[in-house]
Amino acid sequence: SIDAQRLLGRILELGGIGRDGEGRLVRLAASDADRLGRDRFVGWLREAGLEIAIDRMGNIFGVWQVPENAGHAPILIGSHIDTVIDAGIYDGSYGVLAGLEVIETLKASALVPSRPLAVAAFTNEEGVRFSPDMMGSLVHAGGVGIDEALAAVGTDGSVLGEELARIGYAGDEEPGFLKPHVYLELHIEQGPVLEREGVPIGAVENLQGISWQHITIDGVANHAGTTPMSMRNDAGHAAARVVTFLHDRAKASNTPTVATVGTMRFEPNAINVIPSRAVFTVDLRDPFEHRLQAEEAALAAFLEDLAADDGVTISIERLARFEPVIFDVSIVELIETAAKKRGYASKRMTSGAGHDAQMMARLAPAAMIFVPSAGGISHNPREHTADAELVAGANILLDIVAHLADP
Amino acid sequence: SIDAQRLLGRILELGGIGRDGEGRLVRLAASDADRLGRDRFVGWLREAGLEIAIDRMGNIFGVWQVPENAGHAPILIGSHIDTVIDAGIYDGSYGVLAGLEVIETLKASALVPSRPLAVAAFTNEEGVRFSPDMMGSLVHAGGVGIDEALAAVGTDGSVLGEELARIGYAGDEEPGFLKPHVYLELHIEQGPVLEREGVPIGAVENLQGISWQHITIDGVANHAGTTPMSMRNDAGHAAARVVTFLHDRAKASNTPTVATVGTMRFEPNAINVIPSRAVFTVDLRDPFEHRLQAEEAALAAFLEDLAADDGVTISIERLARFEPVIFDVSIVELIETAAKKRGYASKRMTSGAGHDAQMMARLAPAAMIFVPSAGGISHNPREHTADAELVAGANILLDIVAHLADP
Ligand SMILES: NC(=O)NCCC(=O)O
Ligand SMILES: NC(=O)NCCC(=O)O
Repeated sequence: SIDAQRLLGRILELGGIGRDGEGRLVRLAASDADRLGRDRFVGWLREAGLEIAIDRMGNIFGVWQVPENAGHAPILIGSHIDTVIDAGIYDGSYGVLAGLEVIETLKASALVPSRPLAVAAFTNEEGVRFSPDMMGSLVHAGGVGIDEALAAVGTDGSVLGEELARIGYAGDEEPGFLKPHVYLELHIEQGPVLEREGVPIGAVENLQGISWQHITIDGVANHAGTTPMSMRNDAGHAAARVVTFLHDRAKASNTPTVATVGTMRFEPNAINVIPSRAVFTVDLRDPFEHRLQAEEAALAAFLEDLAADDGVTISIERLARFEPVIFDVSIVELIETAAKKRGYASKRMTSGAGHDAQMMARLAPAAMIFVPSAGGISHNPREHTADAELVAGANILLDIVAHLADP
Repeated sequence: SIDAQRLLGRILELGGIGRDGEGRLVRLAASDADRLGRDRFVGWLREAGLEIAIDRMGNIFGVWQVPENAGHAPILIGSHIDTVIDAGIYDGSYGVLAGLEVIETLKASALVPSRPLAVAAFTNEEGVRFSPDMMGSLVHAGGVGIDEALAAVGTDGSVLGEELARIGYAGDEEPGFLKPHVYLELHIEQGPVLEREGVPIGAVENLQGISWQHITIDGVANHAGTTPMSMRNDAGHAAARVVTFLHDRAKASNTPTVATVGTMRFEPNAINVIPSRAVFTVDLRDPFEHRLQAEEAALAAFLEDLAADDGVTISIERLARFEPVIFDVSIVELIETAAKKRGYASKRMTSGAGHDAQMMARLAPAAMIFVPSAGGISHNPREHTADAELVAGANILLDIVAHLADP
């Protein structure tokens, strides 16, 4: 079994790195806070005696290989250490640190693995500062070219490539240099299912599709006191109609479709000025591609009517679009078997969140292990998973890797 | 008649002062840009040979008195030179510069006025940076204490008193030191009525009530992908419901009630995080107090239901509350008479915007003159009034002041 204290201690330590002036965890991709987190992670890789490789995308790899397995495709365990704004400490970091923990544990054992073992921390999984999300693994999998990715402009106007160079994590390796034999990712569920059903291990068999759009509505600024309601082209009101449309439609439907407007900005943003502009994002998700397309079409039709109704102009930019993914069934079965052997119930389930595994599944057989999230809360400092559950997940990962690497 | 070129030239010159990096006019109260505008205005007062007085509130007065009228209460003409964000050049500045123009014109004439003539530029009329609006004239009229006003905290966290001291406009006079015999204010209409009816002069007989509130909705941040619609406490969605409620209610009513949400902010404001908090302002106006109260009550009831429905908590701060004002009928009649003598049609009307006259009416008989706003547009760089209309308004003001000051 893994060293529970070492794993839990590292999760806590990394969770303390990248706190802002208000004590919030804000380790946005390629920020100064991210640099601090990366430095700590690389330090642990070094202490564990792993070979360290960093690619041009800033993805960090720690590899353990022995002469006996040199030249074989590695078993890769990955996730990310960037966070959202005011994040919890488990999302991403748990999977990366558990990957390291599993390799350290096996390295200290008698096992001579048939393949190299590697752990990856992918750049910008969260997609909060730069779009799209899962960018590092997407580039690794060849889904987007490295130059296009490095040119991404952040919400703060920064350029990803410049930021990676600035924080010292623009590496030399060409993205995709490491071709995995199999990809595994351990993650907190970030949703309510496992806790509600009292099941400690999720065997994730698929992952829903994600559609991100950035919408700008232009109306006409005018005086809040003198402009009759009938003469307004209120961009803020038009944006509010989109928010209620999306929310009410998703809530009323009998499908698991989710719709979120997470960001909103008005211009000129003055109390007595009718907004001339509203800028916001839309996050739509569904496990089935045809339904995700139907939701996108419904939004497009609504925006068209809205532009006519409210006398506003609307422009739409696509930030991310990923089809649903189905994971490798033989790995899903390995998870179920490993859970059973350790005496844990497990459940096949869908991932509501996007993950690096979604991109790596393009390159190699892949699947994910979930552990419960208290109250289903994530992307929130109250994100929590009990120590015993974290340790259970890491031991299942250990058993699967040991099985896959045992010649 | 006034010197049209001098007046129009000054309006243009002042309109060029306080431009931001994007060329937008942003002369927010007590900002560096405001300091530049104030310095130019004080320079013109000095060139005109007026006595300059600045009170603790930063209100600037230029006074012309002669031995013959010393000790008499002055005829005061006022408005403001602070602006909104991305403003037009006429709102406020026109009235202040026309006041100066009228005094300069009379000073150069043979008239020995029976009373001193004064022009005022009141601090923070717009209320965009600091609440409430019309703050300088409100303090002058005794409606709020000077210490409370100077403690006002801006949208940028600054403190008004500190900002006035910093820009060198925390004067020595006690607010209210100058007691006017009568108060006049010339302003662009900022609404569509005069243009639509083809009338060049508005004789403003009343001004609608204003209710400003600052609302904070607290929900629960959670993951946009994993959180079922039924388990959300989405502060952004709750805020959007308030926006559509207010807009739809005001639009559907057969009264002139107007409702505006001009500012909006989400937290943490990340694409894949359900907003934990939405912060926004509400601007409600109606010419009748009982109706304004009914609108406020309807909003309060809606917010109560919303808190229960959406599982959010809502807190409300009052930023400004002014009852409707009825101006002095004898001055309104003087405006009508003066317009007629110059051959202009005039129209009695209601002011949709708040103005310093609204506060000064507490101290002395007061009324306002309006000139047309092209397209009814204001609080927008496209704000425009034709030169001939600007000059006509200033000449009406000249005639009224000359009439009131002629012994
Ligand atoms: N796991 C996770 O939170 N990923 C971020 C991308 C997403 O929004 O799903
Ligand atoms: N005239 C004018 O725009 N005043 C600002 C206060 C208001 O919002 O009415």
